[in-house]
Amino acid sequence: MATSKAIKRRILRVTETVRRTTDSLAAEEPLEIRLDGVPLTVTMRTPGDDFDLAAGFLVSEGAVTRSADVATIRYCAGAVAGTNTYNVLDVRLPPGIPRPEPRNFSTTSSCGVCGKASLEAVQTVARWSLKADDTSLSRETITTLPDRLRSAQRVFDRTGGLHAAGLFTAGGDPLCVREDVGRHNAVDKILGWALRNDRLPLRATILMVSGRASFELVQKAVVAGIPALAAVSAPSSLAADLAAEQGMTLIGFLRGESMNVYTGEHRLNVTPSTGLGSAGARFAG
Amino acid sequence: MATSKAIKRRILRVTETVRRTTDSLAAEEPLEIRLDGVPLTVTMRTPGDDFDLAAGFLVSEGAVTRSADVATIRYCAGAVAGTNTYNVLDVRLPPGIPRPEPRNFSTTSSCGVCGKASLEAVQTVARWSLKADDTSLSRETITTLPDRLRSAQRVFDRTGGLHAAGLFTAGGDPLCVREDVGRHNAVDKILGWALRNDRLPLRATILMVSGRASFELVQKAVVAGIPALAAVSAPSSLAADLAAEQGMTLIGFLRGESMNVYTGEHRLNVTPSTGLGSAGARFAG
Repeated sequence: MATSKAIKRRILRVTETVRRTTDSLAAEEPLEIRLDGVPLTVTMRTPGDDFDLAAGFLVSEGAVTRSADVATIRYCAGAVAGTNTYNVLDVRLPPGIPRPEPRNFSTTSSCGVCGKASLEAVQTVARWSLKADDTSLSRETITTLPDRLRSAQRVFDRTGGLHAAGLFTAGGDPLCVREDVGRHNAVDKILGWALRNDRLPLRATILMVSGRASFELVQKAVVAGIPALAAVSAPSSLAADLAAEQGMTLIGFLRGESMNVYTGEHRLNVTPSTGLGSAGARFAG
Repeated sequence: MATSKAIKRRILRVTETVRRTTDSLAAEEPLEIRLDGVPLTVTMRTPGDDFDLAAGFLVSEGAVTRSADVATIRYCAGAVAGTNTYNVLDVRLPPGIPRPEPRNFSTTSSCGVCGKASLEAVQTVARWSLKADDTSLSRETITTLPDRLRSAQRVFDRTGGLHAAGLFTAGGDPLCVREDVGRHNAVDKILGWALRNDRLPLRATILMVSGRASFELVQKAVVAGIPALAAVSAPSSLAADLAAEQGMTLIGFLRGESMNVYTGEHRLNVTPSTGLGSAGARFAG
C-alpha cells in the first residue's frame, strides 16, 4: 500500500548477540507534483498527507495564500502504466494565479515517479558494480567508526549544526572527512575529493554518515562505487531497497557495540545465532 | 570571511538561569555552480571544500568519473558586484564530456548567490510581516513542546527515521503535526494543511521541528506568517540571519528546561539576570 508510513524489513540485529529480526523503516517514495498537467517538481517524501504537501509546496514558493487559490488537487489515475498512481499529483490553479517555475528535476536522485523507476535511474548512472566488490568488514572495526568520525570533525562540537560524512578504509583508517549543513553536500564533498584524486571507484571503503541514510545518500555511494554505508540513525525504505538491489552493505543505528544490518551482510564477520536451529540439531539424529 | 565554518552570534541562554552569551552557528550560504559559465545548480552549503563539492555534485549526477573529466574549477572573481565572490564557482569540462541538465533553481529558498540575496528573495515572497505579530510566548509552554510533538507522532518511535514538525497555538495546543523523511516536506505538509483550511497567515502560533533549523525551514515559516520557530537542534547562521531580519522568534537546542534564544526574545517572558548590574546597584549610591 503506497500510503503506509512504515515498512517492515528483515534485518540482522547485532548487539551482544546476532539475530535475525524485523525493523520498521520510514517509507520513502518520490512524489511528482504537476501543475495543470505539467511537471513542477519531484520530491522524495513519506507517503501520506500528499495533498497537504503539494499545497504547502505552493505556499512555500509564494504562489498561493488562500484555499481559493487552488482549484483542485487529485492523484493522476493511470499516470504510470502498471504501477500505483499515488506518486503523481496534479494541481489545478484557477485563472489569474501566476504559475511558479518548474524546479528540482534531477537526472539521478528523484527522477522516477515510483520507487522502481528511482532505482532504475540510479542503475543507468552507476558505472561500477558493487556486487563485484568482495571487501570484508569486521564488526570490531565498524563499531569504532562513529568515534573516529567525531574525532575527525573540526566544527561539530562547537555548533551542533553540521552533518558529517567520513570515508574510511576497510581497516577503519580515515581517508576523507567532510562537514556541511546539508548531508548530501557533505557526501558530495567526499566524492569530489575522490574524483580530484582519481580514486573512483572507491572500492574496499566504507562511508559513515552522522545522521540518517536516505535514498539520495545511498545513490551517491553507489555512483562512487562505495560498497558499504553506515549511519548513526535509520535508513529509509527506498534506501534499503536501493542498497539491496546494488549489492551494498547498509548499516543503520550504529551506536556503541550495536548496529542493524539491512543489506549485504555477506561482507561482515557476523553470524546469526541459530537458537532454534541449535536446539533442533541437539535433538536431531 | 566567507570560508569560516562557524559564526558566533549573541544569544539568550535559558537554563535555570537566563543569561546573555555567545553561540557558534554552522555557517550556511548559497553556492552557485556554473558549468562553462552557465548556471547549473544552487545549493545551500557550509563554505569550505567548495571545489570538492562542485566536483562531487558532478560525480553524483553521473557526469564525471576521472579527474581528467574536469578541466578547471575556479571562483568567479567579480561575479557579484560589491560582494564576495566565494559563492559562485565555474567548472569547465573538456570537450566530449556530456553536460548534465541544470536543476534545483528555486524562486525562494536558494536563488541568491550570497546570503544577502537569499534574505532579499524571501522578502519578495513574504506576504505578511511577522514584526506586527506581538504574540506572547511563555517559557513554561515552550519547554513542553518537544514532548507534545513526540506524543503526537505516530511513526517516529517505530522507525526512528522520520522528521516531525508540529504547529502549536501560543498556549501549546497542537494544531497540526506532520512527519516525513524530508524535514522540508514535513513543514510543507503543515503549510498545505493551513492553506486548505484558510488559516494563513498563521499568526500567534509556534512551529516546532524535531531536528535542526535551516534557512529553508525559517523561510517556510516566514512565508506562512508563523512568528516563532523552535528546534531540538541547532539553527544555521543564515537561518538566524533571516529570523532576525523578519522579526521571528528563533529557538534552538530546546531540550528539557533549556533553550537557546537566537532572535525575537521580546515575545518571551524571560529576563536575563544582570549579575554585574545587580552587584553594581548594590554598591551604587
